[in-house]
Order: sequence, then C-alpha cells, then structure tokens
Amino acid sequence: MKSYFIKLLSIVMLCVGITNTVLAQNTKENTTTPTKDAITTILNRKSVREFTGKMLTNETLDTLAKAGMAAPSAMNKQPWVFILINDRKTLNLMADSLPSAKMLYKAGGAIVVCGDQKKNIAGNELFWVEDCAAASQNILIAVESLELGAVWTGVFPDNKKMATVRTILEIPSDVIPLNVIAIGYPSGKDVPKNKYKKENIHWNKW
Amino acid sequence: MKSYFIKLLSIVMLCVGITNTVLAQNTKENTTTPTKDAITTILNRKSVREFTGKMLTNETLDTLAKAGMAAPSAMNKQPWVFILINDRKTLNLMADSLPSAKMLYKAGGAIVVCGDQKKNIAGNELFWVEDCAAASQNILIAVESLELGAVWTGVFPDNKKMATVRTILEIPSDVIPLNVIAIGYPSGKDVPKNKYKKENIHWNKW
Repeated sequence: MKSYFIKLLSIVMLCVGITNTVLAQNTKENTTTPTKDAITTILNRKSVREFTGKMLTNETLDTLAKAGMAAPSAMNKQPWVFILINDRKTLNLMADSLPSAKMLYKAGGAIVVCGDQKKNIAGNELFWVEDCAAASQNILIAVESLELGAVWTGVFPDNKKMATVRTILEIPSDVIPLNVIAIGYPSGKDVPKNKYKKENIHWNKW
Repeated sequence: MKSYFIKLLSIVMLCVGITNTVLAQNTKENTTTPTKDAITTILNRKSVREFTGKMLTNETLDTLAKAGMAAPSAMNKQPWVFILINDRKTLNLMADSLPSAKMLYKAGGAIVVCGDQKKNIAGNELFWVEDCAAASQNILIAVESLELGAVWTGVFPDNKKMATVRTILEIPSDVIPLNVIAIGYPSGKDVPKNKYKKENIHWNKW
C-alpha cells in the first residue's frame, strides 16, 4: 500500500512539473518576443541619434512602411509615399548634404515620408502634412517596437532641405518630402524623456 | 501510514491547484490587459464612429493624454495642449454644432488637440501641425491598445469649425484647435482596412 502511494505521489509530482514548465514557457514567451504593449512602447519611444552602423534589411523597412500606411488620412486619401533607403552611398550622400542629418552616417537606413500633391483635397492643401505626420509617428512607434531607434529630421517647409532631398532622391516636382527619418540599431546612449505635464491638460473646457 | 500519505497527497494536490491558479491568472492577465504588441496595435487601429454610449473615466483620458505628450516635437517645443472631455452636455453641444462630429452623441469622451502658438518656432509657423498630428496619432494607438475606439475629425484649418470649437470650449485666441478626437467603447461595427500599397513605396530613390 505504501509503495502504491509513493508511485501515485511520483505521478502527481511529474504532472506538477510538466504543467508548470508549460505555463512558465508561455509566460516567458510573452516577455522575450517583441510584445511590449503599445502604450509602453509609446512611452519608451525616444529620438535616437547614435547608431552602431549595422544595416537594416529590406524586410524591416517594408514592415515599417506598412505601419506608416496604417495611419488615418483625411477623406482616406492616403497622400503618402515612402522612399525606403538602405543603400550606404545614398545615406552618406544625404548625411554630407543635410546639416541636421549627420546621424545618417551611422544609421542602418532611412525613410523619407513624402506627400503626393496630386492627392490633395481642394481647399485643404495642408491636410497631407497632418496625414504624413501621423504616418511618420506610426513608423517611429514601430521602430521602437522592433527595438530599433529613429529620429525624425524635418525637411518641409525648408526650401533648401527640400531641394537637396529632391535632387539626391530624384523626387518629382508634385511630391514634397516632409522629413527624413534616420533609423538604425541604437548604441544605447539615448533614453526616453518624461514629457507628461499637468499644465498641458484642461478638463471639459479651457 | 496510509492516512499519512493521503494527507501528504492532499497537500501536494492543494499546492498544484494554487500554483496553477496563480500561473493561469498571470497568463489570463496577459491576454485581457492591453498587451498586444505595438505593431499589431498599429495595424488593428481603425476609425471607430459607432459607440455604445458608455462614458470614459478621468483616468482613461489622462492615460491617453500622457501617450499624446510622449510624441516628438520640433526642437522639443511640445506645442500641444489637450482638452479632455467626458462631460455629457459638452459632448452633446459639440455634436449639435459640428456637422462632421455627430458620433460625439454616443462617444464616451473626446480629446481636442490644440497648438499653442506662443510655442511656435520663428520661420516655421506650421511645425505645430506636425507635432500635434504626431501626438494625435499616439492617442489613437493608445485608444486601440485599451480596446477602445476613436476617430480623428478635422477642425484646423476650417475657420467655421475652429470658431465653433473655440466658443464652446472657451479656447484663447493664441491657441488653435487642430482636431476633435471622438473616443468611446466601440459597438463592434468598425473594422481595420488593409491600406498596404506597393505603389506607395520606392527603394533608395524615386
């Protein structure tokens, strides 16, 4: 009778072990795959200007463009065009020519978010700026989600910067580059700011 | 001896029960709290215009404003101000007065994202539009993350809409309302669009 109970006890203990291992693996998977929730990712996002130099794959840039295209747009015009860059020479040429984008020398890629003026809404010729800014923000959050880093460097409405980007990337005249988003593997030096300010909130009226 | 093993077995079985309950609760928490990863959340986000009428708490609106304030801004000027609304009468008054915001009758709240013109950068008087659009997009993603729904309804640069919102919310003259984001508990009728288009991507140059 004693040995019967010892066997039964062994089986029960084995079951405990298997069950806990399976549950523990599920729990571990939730913390090691890129599954930080969206709000945590939004709060962790920071402007990253220091990169290791490792290049981004086409697949990564395509994933980021897909996130950009998921933004809303006025009247669903989707006025954006994305130039995805992971050619070292092009990145270096842009770094040479744009004073505010020197981080491109060490970036692994870049996305230039452009507004197609043929998709403008008559009477609201600046909606493309809002739509492309929303798409750009989607890209920045997706970058953080992939544990990469990025910084949004402005191009529009600076005539000199717009001309420089247009020339290097051969952008047609009816398309305006809004920004150059430098993207790469962070060196780890950049950290998020806490920008929560009670004075920037009003309740129910001013 | 037999009763000793029965007692021991009972204790082991109790431990199994407690351990599995604790682990199961952890696992459950990971699926019911907002823990979808950020890219999935970005792709799931949709414009939600059909709400149940249930009101949003102050805490929820504050969380969304915090997400908004985590956006980047040109020269870190943070030119945004958020008017958080969960007063039924104010929501109804806005729905009465704004032709494109009738969904506010059933929304549980709203955020009006405004640009403080005192924080403008000389020579770049439209950067606030990009900054506030990026903040708005953060709010929309945070809304999706909380399993709520939202739709961005434009206000700027429509003079009539700007005057209406300014009057109802008593917004001072040096602050411009960019949009009204209607937020609420979705009725489940709105679904995400797949807006990925290969023709909106160029590689390394146009």
